[in-house]
Amino acid sequence: MNIIDIISKTKKSQQLSEQEIRWLVENFTNGNIPDYQMASWLMAVCLNGLTDKETVCLTLAMRDSGDILDLSKINRITVDKHSTGGVGDKTSLVIGPIAASCGVAVPKMSGRGLGHTGGTIDKLESIKGFRTELPFEKFAEIVNKTGFSIISQSGELCPADKKMYALRNATGTVDSIPLICASIMSKKLALNADCLLLDVKCGSGAFMKTREDAEHLARLMESVGTAAGKKCRAMVTDMDSPLGANVGNALEVKEAVELLQGKVKGPLYDVCISLAANMLELAGKGTINECTALAEDAVRSGRALAVLKETIELQGGDGRVCYDTGVLPKAEFSHVIRASRDVHISAINSEEIGMASLLLGAGRISKDDDIDPTAGIVMDCAVGDNISMHAPLMTLYSSRCSDFSEAAMRALNAITFKDI
Amino acid sequence: MNIIDIISKTKKSQQLSEQEIRWLVENFTNGNIPDYQMASWLMAVCLNGLTDKETVCLTLAMRDSGDILDLSKINRITVDKHSTGGVGDKTSLVIGPIAASCGVAVPKMSGRGLGHTGGTIDKLESIKGFRTELPFEKFAEIVNKTGFSIISQSGELCPADKKMYALRNATGTVDSIPLICASIMSKKLALNADCLLLDVKCGSGAFMKTREDAEHLARLMESVGTAAGKKCRAMVTDMDSPLGANVGNALEVKEAVELLQGKVKGPLYDVCISLAANMLELAGKGTINECTALAEDAVRSGRALAVLKETIELQGGDGRVCYDTGVLPKAEFSHVIRASRDVHISAINSEEIGMASLLLGAGRISKDDDIDPTAGIVMDCAVGDNISMHAPLMTLYSSRCSDFSEAAMRALNAITFKDI
Repeated sequence: MNIIDIISKTKKSQQLSEQEIRWLVENFTNGNIPDYQMASWLMAVCLNGLTDKETVCLTLAMRDSGDILDLSKINRITVDKHSTGGVGDKTSLVIGPIAASCGVAVPKMSGRGLGHTGGTIDKLESIKGFRTELPFEKFAEIVNKTGFSIISQSGELCPADKKMYALRNATGTVDSIPLICASIMSKKLALNADCLLLDVKCGSGAFMKTREDAEHLARLMESVGTAAGKKCRAMVTDMDSPLGANVGNALEVKEAVELLQGKVKGPLYDVCISLAANMLELAGKGTINECTALAEDAVRSGRALAVLKETIELQGGDGRVCYDTGVLPKAEFSHVIRASRDVHISAINSEEIGMASLLLGAGRISKDDDIDPTAGIVMDCAVGDNISMHAPLMTLYSSRCSDFSEAAMRALNAITFKDI
Repeated sequence: MNIIDIISKTKKSQQLSEQEIRWLVENFTNGNIPDYQMASWLMAVCLNGLTDKETVCLTLAMRDSGDILDLSKINRITVDKHSTGGVGDKTSLVIGPIAASCGVAVPKMSGRGLGHTGGTIDKLESIKGFRTELPFEKFAEIVNKTGFSIISQSGELCPADKKMYALRNATGTVDSIPLICASIMSKKLALNADCLLLDVKCGSGAFMKTREDAEHLARLMESVGTAAGKKCRAMVTDMDSPLGANVGNALEVKEAVELLQGKVKGPLYDVCISLAANMLELAGKGTINECTALAEDAVRSGRALAVLKETIELQGGDGRVCYDTGVLPKAEFSHVIRASRDVHISAINSEEIGMASLLLGAGRISKDDDIDPTAGIVMDCAVGDNISMHAPLMTLYSSRCSDFSEAAMRALNAITFKDI
């Protein structure tokens, strides 16, 4: 086999064989195919696409480039969930404990985030003492005890994806639905849970800006997961405005805890219940209506919160956070943005809110940046609200910068007002 | 400026500015932009194309990446000619002397060839003593004396093209008309002759397989040359069957000399006269009819042959070749292929003839390969001929391999016969 032939085929929209795709992935991963040849192929994929069959082959070849987890030590059916990510998306912190408290196992490995705010791992690390780097044995032990654990992803999973993603990032070849699918699904399949729920976010704060792209990615991921022998479902959920009120690491832990305490209703609660119900249904816990009732009861009864507390403590963290969010680190500086007149909130652009929280220190621009766990934004308004003159629209937090002018301007620009 | 933005624009078919293209070429040439980012951009160009304006900017930026020749020491109007190359194309050896003997200067810098047979430089080096690496002063002196000289291209011209071509070759991004145009024209513009004739070969033995692609490339090169302030014309000429009878280095020198001796007629002669006449007309030597008469007379009178002899001698070569081609090196082995029955020749695939001569040692597969100057093929038949049983179809020559079976099979397959 020959890399020039492979590049030329994709360039001419001719289908590659499974053997060709495996050869490509193996030789790129072990360094026989240099970055410049892979970059050329990746651009050809961006512009010409891949067939669904090719995408399945690519995903499985990438999965097989490293370790595949052996979850046989976990004594319940395992369910994993992936979100394509968005501003204020703290659903993993909520639905893992809900599903675990209903009898399934949610063994999650997660990454650190690049972008607006940190990833789930960064969020959890704002809890004092919480350890995200645990040996697999310990991880399995916690999952067997509570049903739920989140640790950071080990280095031996999907080296092909790691190398390919870094190259895509440097060559303008990120936004290709088959490549996005292969990147996400190769990692998820290496994590090897029995059931897989995929939450494809759609809207201004998401990677998929249009409903059409989001549906395309969802359908493709579902078919790849099914082809790989998993019980797999993909849902498209809204990310046009931030999910919930809080954006930022400690701030999102606080909101997740409050939700499990029964204090949060509205879109965030609804999305969490819907995701958790789908996880339970995939795992065979009943019809979707029965699973919805199970999920709601897990919150109402406090069972899900108890799972979260026990997991935090088993991972070395301060479990008091589940009853007193005041123990979370607090920002040194804050700034309230108020309405300058009576207004109606017609839209909130979540990407701009994300950029503002990045300016405050909540996220990373490059992968070695430090995160300020206290930084972020709490929205005091939601789409559809009427806000009186001088009432707060949102509050900005940071321990890093006391000058809020740039972040405030950006955050304010995120809101579309109508005079009332 | 930012390479990712530039890649993304071309990926989305958005036009790049002149500044962006200059920045791209400069930073690629000096190594600030790594090969993998350039490879991604090149594939985007292959699939999305460039506008004519972008192609002009790219060509000029590439031209400006190295030296631009100062031809002011040459005391006549200068005319350069470029051929996109084909099997048996020895026109440079013929039309340079013709045009020079009619009063224009033809200062040619040429490359070594990759592929079926060598380049013009390789062909000339089959003449004993002929030196192709001369200092520029000496080159200009010869041109001022005889009107014609060919030397090998210096290393400081168009480093951007050199680097980009090597990368295209390794990344499946060769076949893009804007990139081919920029590669050819940047070098030609750096050579800086006043007039430029471009011979775009079209057909089975050429890089441009279809008339449509050849016309597109011709039109594009003409407009780039004109935009750069040159008198420029592009002609599309046929390369469906080999040009002339001889393919191979010394064999082509022999045929070129024979043509200037007045012994060759037919398509090769016609193409050479037409190209030479166009060069003369571009240089203002009269109407195309007047220039055609001038070119024919230059051959008939032996004036063109005298120019070739003087140039060969000034470059250290054995000038006797112009009166006795027997001084050229001869192959150790030869093999005649004969007709097995009475046949009509309906087509000769020049690419297959080229591949056969490559197998005999006439060309290079990789750039450090040695060429066998004696190797090649002499066609004893042409398209349209009727050949009797046992009469020769062609003769294969090589000093390297005495087993002709593979090359003979390939050469024979090049011919389409019809029974008569």
